[in-house]
Amino acid sequence: MNERLLKLYAYMEQHLLDAVLITLPKHVYYLTGFSSEPHERFLGLLLPKGDEPFLLVPALDAESAQAESTVSRIYTHTDTDNPYEVLKRCLRGTVTRLGVEKGHLTMQRYEALSEMLGAEQYIDVATPLTNMRAIKSDDEIVRLKKAARLVEQVLRDGLKHVKAGVTELDIAAELEYGMKKAGVSPAFATTVLSGEKSALPHGATGNRVIRAGDMLLFDMGVAADGYLSDMTRTFAVGDVGARMKEIYETVLEANARGIAAVRPGAMLAEVDLAARQCITNGGYGAYFTHRVGHGLGIEVHEYPSVHGENRDLLREGMVITIEPGIYLPDIGGVRIEDDVLVTSTGAETLTTFPKQLAVIG
Amino acid sequence: MNERLLKLYAYMEQHLLDAVLITLPKHVYYLTGFSSEPHERFLGLLLPKGDEPFLLVPALDAESAQAESTVSRIYTHTDTDNPYEVLKRCLRGTVTRLGVEKGHLTMQRYEALSEMLGAEQYIDVATPLTNMRAIKSDDEIVRLKKAARLVEQVLRDGLKHVKAGVTELDIAAELEYGMKKAGVSPAFATTVLSGEKSALPHGATGNRVIRAGDMLLFDMGVAADGYLSDMTRTFAVGDVGARMKEIYETVLEANARGIAAVRPGAMLAEVDLAARQCITNGGYGAYFTHRVGHGLGIEVHEYPSVHGENRDLLREGMVITIEPGIYLPDIGGVRIEDDVLVTSTGAETLTTFPKQLAVIG
Repeated sequence: MNERLLKLYAYMEQHLLDAVLITLPKHVYYLTGFSSEPHERFLGLLLPKGDEPFLLVPALDAESAQAESTVSRIYTHTDTDNPYEVLKRCLRGTVTRLGVEKGHLTMQRYEALSEMLGAEQYIDVATPLTNMRAIKSDDEIVRLKKAARLVEQVLRDGLKHVKAGVTELDIAAELEYGMKKAGVSPAFATTVLSGEKSALPHGATGNRVIRAGDMLLFDMGVAADGYLSDMTRTFAVGDVGARMKEIYETVLEANARGIAAVRPGAMLAEVDLAARQCITNGGYGAYFTHRVGHGLGIEVHEYPSVHGENRDLLREGMVITIEPGIYLPDIGGVRIEDDVLVTSTGAETLTTFPKQLAVIG
Repeated sequence: MNERLLKLYAYMEQHLLDAVLITLPKHVYYLTGFSSEPHERFLGLLLPKGDEPFLLVPALDAESAQAESTVSRIYTHTDTDNPYEVLKRCLRGTVTRLGVEKGHLTMQRYEALSEMLGAEQYIDVATPLTNMRAIKSDDEIVRLKKAARLVEQVLRDGLKHVKAGVTELDIAAELEYGMKKAGVSPAFATTVLSGEKSALPHGATGNRVIRAGDMLLFDMGVAADGYLSDMTRTFAVGDVGARMKEIYETVLEANARGIAAVRPGAMLAEVDLAARQCITNGGYGAYFTHRVGHGLGIEVHEYPSVHGENRDLLREGMVITIEPGIYLPDIGGVRIEDDVLVTSTGAETLTTFPKQLAVIG
């Protein structure tokens, strides 16, 4: 059994659980290597006390589960089965205290489990999973680096298509085409924001036409072997004027300060403040309206959150984003985002795409 | 207030609910026109008994909510608020019986609601929503037709890139590029399966190289103004031999029979059987391993399910897929899928892409 499953079994013992049921597909992948999207169908990884773990998968995923999963005990259910009935048969013993992912398990499933298994107490197993996932193994770091390398390549190639007259969507289409050709998929909807739209931290790529004088912001990532990258770069299309250049330099400095604050033992709030202070000192504090970053791994946003109230400590092996920004409403914005690994002595920046202000188009 | 909200209020009265909480983003869109992806943040549409409905949205979505939503009472919460506390303040009165989407509400949210609002009884509001969504309005049909037209255009353009030597992923990249250029996004991961892989009903687009003699199967759709298309076409790359041609004709006939069985009042099982019988008669019954289709609208798979055990009746305004297939393991497969609207007298096929076996590449 792999180390991750062993840790979950240890948690189960410690909390007197009779079984743990994992239903989040990304967690099934994390714990067994079996990657799938079961949609409305039931997918479960079961850890019964004192017994081997097993997977219960839709019949049409049986073959891929067998090929990919390190857990070799695999049961299936068809579309006409009641999966909870099948689950009960596979589980043998009684289950009173059941470990589940409360942030994922729906009330519908909770009621079906209560009725079918008679489970009475539900205990959230988010904590051990969050703790495990936060510290990346060497193998996970290799994948995160691959995802970073690939998104950089895609951006480099995509920039060739930027010229006055094309739309944000045209550019995003080229970028996602590049991802697909490289055999990877977007980690999230590829974001291209131009001109005044670059001042929208959650703006959507649209039909705005790129013009000289625009700031052009790219927020993008890819999924490589289950692990994600998440990178933002902002460019100048032609001459953007002195003020946007000043803002750019301020954000760049904030990005560097944030990264410089990353080391094992540093409080997450310190990292946020290191970057934020720089923007506040520049007089733009009111225009930096979000946290400095977030954990990154099998999900785009995972533990830990890099914000000013988070007193948790960074630990070696964590991977976080550092993404300060300044957004001037109706004018334009700049964000520069890197993926950063906490090393034994400080930080290693996984995204290496140049950050000096580049004029393109 | 729009008709959909009125129906939900009527359901609330009838079931003595104190309030209804809608959290599925697609349902918020369906009921208010406000489309968003809140990720881990709380998004809720509240219908309090005897009071106007309101939205509770993340602060950074406030502007788009105001712009898009027909519900004008909008409250916000920031990342440092407890959204359930904000919800309690907005709700004023006591809530004992709360209507929720049990298939979407997680245990975590259920526990937070119980603790914060003191709600004691949770009643699933899936039924009224499912019933409303099943019958498409004229406006919804316009959007579904647009989604069908766009996916056909994308496929037509994409076929130009098919030739021996390119991979499934190369073609899928061209197709998704075409979608993006048309301003729409894939309704689901665009599927291109070639040769023996076309025999996998849930196969994944990969690096297999297209060769003469391959069957080439496309399963794809786009989202246009919130509504989806879902279409499958299968082509011959060069000469595929007599057997695959026979299978193709059998599936084509089954597709036609399935569509011919669609009319108001027909049992869904009848539609499944009409298509299935044709394949069974052809001697391939064992190689058609899934249901004939499913409802289509704001989700790719919605009510009703077109399978042999479903005794529900078709009603005017429903939109379903008809997608029979034959899959010969390790050899190849054929599926032909259309989107079909139930009219007052029969059926209107929304997908019009030619279905006679075409040789390409």
